[in-house]
Amino acid sequence: MLGGKTFASDNNSGVHPRVMEALTRANAGHCVAYGDDPITASAQRAFRDTFGPNAHVFFVYNGTGANVSALSAMRRSFHGIICADCAHANVDECGAPECVSGSKLLPVPSVDGRITPEGIAPKLHHLGFQHSSQPRVVTLTQATEFGTVYSLDDIRAIADFAHDHGLLVHMDGARLANAAAALGCSLADISVRAGVDALSFGGTKNGLMFGEAVVLFDSSLVGDFPYVRKQCMQLHSKMRFIAAQFEAYLTDGLWLDNARSANAMARLLADSVRDVPGLELTCPVETNAVFARIPREAVEPLQKRSFFYVWDEETVEVRWMTSFDTTPEDVSAFAADIRDVLGECL
Amino acid sequence: MLGGKTFASDNNSGVHPRVMEALTRANAGHCVAYGDDPITASAQRAFRDTFGPNAHVFFVYNGTGANVSALSAMRRSFHGIICADCAHANVDECGAPECVSGSKLLPVPSVDGRITPEGIAPKLHHLGFQHSSQPRVVTLTQATEFGTVYSLDDIRAIADFAHDHGLLVHMDGARLANAAAALGCSLADISVRAGVDALSFGGTKNGLMFGEAVVLFDSSLVGDFPYVRKQCMQLHSKMRFIAAQFEAYLTDGLWLDNARSANAMARLLADSVRDVPGLELTCPVETNAVFARIPREAVEPLQKRSFFYVWDEETVEVRWMTSFDTTPEDVSAFAADIRDVLGECL
Amino acid sequence: MLGGKTFASDNNSGVHPRVMEALTRANAGHCVAYGDDPITASAQRAFRDTFGPNAHVFFVYNGTGANVSALSAMRRSFHGIICADCAHANVDECGAPECVSGSKLLPVPSVDGRITPEGIAPKLHHLGFQHSSQPRVVTLTQATEFGTVYSLDDIRAIADFAHDHGLLVHMDGARLANAAAALGCSLADISVRAGVDALSFGGTKNGLMFGEAVVLFDSSLVGDFPYVRKQCMQLHSKMRFIAAQFEAYLTDGLWLDNARSANAMARLLADSVRDVPGLELTCPVETNAVFARIPREAVEPLQKRSFFYVWDEETVEVRWMTSFDTTPEDVSAFAADIRDVLGECL
Amino acid sequence: MLGGKTFASDNNSGVHPRVMEALTRANAGHCVAYGDDPITASAQRAFRDTFGPNAHVFFVYNGTGANVSALSAMRRSFHGIICADCAHANVDECGAPECVSGSKLLPVPSVDGRITPEGIAPKLHHLGFQHSSQPRVVTLTQATEFGTVYSLDDIRAIADFAHDHGLLVHMDGARLANAAAALGCSLADISVRAGVDALSFGGTKNGLMFGEAVVLFDSSLVGDFPYVRKQCMQLHSKMRFIAAQFEAYLTDGLWLDNARSANAMARLLADSVRDVPGLELTCPVETNAVFARIPREAVEPLQKRSFFYVWDEETVEVRWMTSFDTTPEDVSAFAADIRDVLGECL
Repeated sequence: MLGGKTFASDNNSGVHPRVMEALTRANAGHCVAYGDDPITASAQRAFRDTFGPNAHVFFVYNGTGANVSALSAMRRSFHGIICADCAHANVDECGAPECVSGSKLLPVPSVDGRITPEGIAPKLHHLGFQHSSQPRVVTLTQATEFGTVYSLDDIRAIADFAHDHGLLVHMDGARLANAAAALGCSLADISVRAGVDALSFGGTKNGLMFGEAVVLFDSSLVGDFPYVRKQCMQLHSKMRFIAAQFEAYLTDGLWLDNARSANAMARLLADSVRDVPGLELTCPVETNAVFARIPREAVEPLQKRSFFYVWDEETVEVRWMTSFDTTPEDVSAFAADIRDVLGECL
Repeated sequence: MLGGKTFASDNNSGVHPRVMEALTRANAGHCVAYGDDPITASAQRAFRDTFGPNAHVFFVYNGTGANVSALSAMRRSFHGIICADCAHANVDECGAPECVSGSKLLPVPSVDGRITPEGIAPKLHHLGFQHSSQPRVVTLTQATEFGTVYSLDDIRAIADFAHDHGLLVHMDGARLANAAAALGCSLADISVRAGVDALSFGGTKNGLMFGEAVVLFDSSLVGDFPYVRKQCMQLHSKMRFIAAQFEAYLTDGLWLDNARSANAMARLLADSVRDVPGLELTCPVETNAVFARIPREAVEPLQKRSFFYVWDEETVEVRWMTSFDTTPEDVSAFAADIRDVLGECL
Repeated sequence: MLGGKTFASDNNSGVHPRVMEALTRANAGHCVAYGDDPITASAQRAFRDTFGPNAHVFFVYNGTGANVSALSAMRRSFHGIICADCAHANVDECGAPECVSGSKLLPVPSVDGRITPEGIAPKLHHLGFQHSSQPRVVTLTQATEFGTVYSLDDIRAIADFAHDHGLLVHMDGARLANAAAALGCSLADISVRAGVDALSFGGTKNGLMFGEAVVLFDSSLVGDFPYVRKQCMQLHSKMRFIAAQFEAYLTDGLWLDNARSANAMARLLADSVRDVPGLELTCPVETNAVFARIPREAVEPLQKRSFFYVWDEETVEVRWMTSFDTTPEDVSAFAADIRDVLGECL
Repeated sequence: MLGGKTFASDNNSGVHPRVMEALTRANAGHCVAYGDDPITASAQRAFRDTFGPNAHVFFVYNGTGANVSALSAMRRSFHGIICADCAHANVDECGAPECVSGSKLLPVPSVDGRITPEGIAPKLHHLGFQHSSQPRVVTLTQATEFGTVYSLDDIRAIADFAHDHGLLVHMDGARLANAAAALGCSLADISVRAGVDALSFGGTKNGLMFGEAVVLFDSSLVGDFPYVRKQCMQLHSKMRFIAAQFEAYLTDGLWLDNARSANAMARLLADSVRDVPGLELTCPVETNAVFARIPREAVEPLQKRSFFYVWDEETVEVRWMTSFDTTPEDVSAFAADIRDVLGECL
């Protein structure tokens, strides 16, 4: 019934078999709802094992819910949230951060999806000026919307700069697994050990059915978070079914295997099409995304063969994503399609 | 690992086997995310078959998300939403309706969970008065928080009254299946045919893993709803996994079988404990809830045997819920516990 | 051009001559905007002289702005604000507290406009329950919407109860002057010394042209308040013109003279009509309001002679307010009108 | 008591004598509050005489209140508001538009404060994409934050472009009088006749004590506006005192005389300092603002002589504003100060 694998988005994939098994296993008998159950307790232990003893995890439904609830917990309505201009929170959440938290996003220019302390600095001139939203949080996306990654030094530099000015650091880790796989470091290295105060840790794009995790490292944020989560409509009644997925995800390196595989397939795709006439790769391929500029007249014919999104209508930059279940054969077939269609357009 | 069945809440139960099968079946290959997939299309057809050709269904994550997004679509921030004082939206959503929509809830007194046109009428004196929130929506809970049901005539009377005054009608149907089973009518009879403009249709309390459905019958609400849903953080990427559950739920009367069974078990429980000395049933048992007053000193010992919630701390009114998978044996065992513990307290 | 004096509202009156003089005096040359000017500094000193050295005053535009900004500073969006069911913030601010602060109002039943610790207590059962708005502030109106006053003991009892449970106390003092005049106590006695943490201190109803004052006694609220005020759209550029009015108001007891006079006129009106057949006084007359039930058919003819508002459409309870400039002759004339019109209706 | 005239801001000035007289005149007797009075009716006629028969005016307190209430009336929370990056609504309202309306601002790059259809166009790619705030309003500032003006053709071009794409046009006219004076056109030419749907019309910066006007030309926005204004805490009880000021302002060209004088003084200042070594004018001087880059070490010494604001800390760009009451002598004295201080710095 469903079509074959595409490169439109990593959330076009399904659920990893080990996650599906965990869901089936969790479906036994009754347990208390809203998180006071043994499966959730076990998953919380897995998070502490992964991120350290000060990691407080709260499960939510999706990436927007994770970002908005985490950011809501970190600020008041007169605060501003510094983000990359291309950040998901800024362009792909339909204004949920502003609507729900009341806070203003303060976008700064990015290069290949990344921002820097130098880019953030001008926003801090508003500190103490009663007419302006007061910068309070810097949010970073790791891996970025362009599939690039911040190095550990990059993150540490931004976190130090933020903390030196009294700001907190949030990380949108919808694809944190892919970034950690790319950097060859642990999930803790890339977040709490690099100075992150609160993390949106994604799983759906890497083999889960639903659910994301907000991981708070700043203990002052923990006490209020249950209310923030509920008010953000992110409290699941049958919590065990999110917890069980994450427990499987953190067990035996499933997150890492999935991410490594997806990253490798993106590199393979990039290498396979790099020399196609009329195609230009526009971003370093560091995780599971390939960004390319192609001729405008190639877009529709290629989409008909295998759907994908145009990222920038003005420049005809397109995005191709690989998933945990993308195979070398899928890549070969798509690369051949690209070569064909672009060949016909020249 | 998980404990035995309890009467604390219908969301302490797990997932119905036919729903679990549907989830497994849906996990095949890739498909476009966010609802543009064949499983979602098929589930939408099932909703039109069930609720009529003008039913526009949008899947969301949970009951609070369904209520808040539906209500947000129906009003602007200066509008007021008339509800029962005991409504879930008023007392159990941590202020999400106010925070997210900006609108004020206008609670009116209820009897056994139900409100009436007479109770609503005084709120309408504020219409046209610039200092007051302008009543715009009446929201009804069916079945109510006390497990009672509005008759079709009750709903029609409130809907007519609301429409006559230019208001819209929302129904919180987290337990609509139980209400329809109790009334012996169809899901359409109890909602769109009785004058409801927008419905939160629940499934999680009756055998689903996650997901609720917002069903819009007023077509003027449809165009904007995708943005409202997204801003309410209720748009699931892998939509097929909510859709597949609902399709199973609406197929071969699964919703009805589950609801009938739960309702029957609540009646059985009520009948089994009605004569226990010291226990007083406080509400008609019409669906899957039993409300009773018990001696304060019986609460803790009984909770130790099988956990449940105290509904009203002042009067020691407690709530016992049955689920789709509650069996006569479960009821017998719990009734015996009640009889035992209350006997010891006298 | 303008009509004669009415009893519709104390804000139908104009500006006291001494306030008008202060405005004229303030209109000399340039000074820095937004509050960093010598007139504002002088008014701030007058507030510290009146309310004590820990009184931090911030000028705003109106009563709704004062309430909403003060309450916004005291809570986060998942908090609840306990108030009387009849409170201005609950019924006469068009949902501004909910829309702007995102918080839920938690109304409790009132008698003659007053609430009690006993009435507040049931709301506290929700403390610590993640599904419910967390009570954080109790707001009292002094004088109440019904013109009655809380005694110093009443206020202290509520403040102690609130503080014992970790809640803060806000006072809506749109008519604080009238209450202090009625109780024969100082403005400090009735607020900060009775346990109030934040005060909306009104002036417009008692002789000012525009402007209210938020007075913060809890110093932890002070640092953020400039941003809250700005975001609440309550920061006036030419601040000196609010400051100058309040300085005049607090000088030589102008606030007290005005309030005493208005209160005396309300007592005179009540005494003058108490025996009119068909009229029933419905509330103790403690400040500058008279509430009465009159025959429904008398309302329109009496409004034609002198406009006033029907407070409760169901019971035909009406409200008559006196102002700082109401004279005994005004009262006599209106009392005669009442006697006439009600006489004709019998 | 107050210092001499400065060039820090046009709201450092006081109240024009004819406005003060109007306030004194309005202070006679009682009248109904909240706008149902003869002075307000007369001011409304003056607005229709000025802006045409379809001009619906609502008085509010300040510029932020005018912008936020007007924008709130024009959109829903999932809508986006396109504005210049430097717009007051974007940088100087402490996030009030986002907090109160829930909507996202979509800033576009500006040159000398102005935006163009070409700059707006890329934001429209998001129309119909459920993940993004839906552009609904374009807001223009006239005169801009840099004192420049849009020509009538500029405005018309943007308005046509906006309307062609289903968007509405708002104008922030805090300094509309200065712009009209600069263009030599009427207030109607520059707003309603150029395609503006809703206008924030300022007066405080040009001789009023307090109060701004929201003028709605799109009649579909009118019915709900009273509730929006109230919820935005912008409804003044003693409305006559705002109305009287605006009536005086629109009578016998007071707005125009004041604006012309302020504009002339800015030109005089620019001409007087244009040749000062080390000073560079950074923007065309079209209304009552002069922007200049000066040596960093000159800022403090010059501020000590006469306070002003640094507009851009990075580039040491400063802003000097003239007021309705600035005289040639004031300009000479300040120009001499500039020449002196900059001379000492070289």
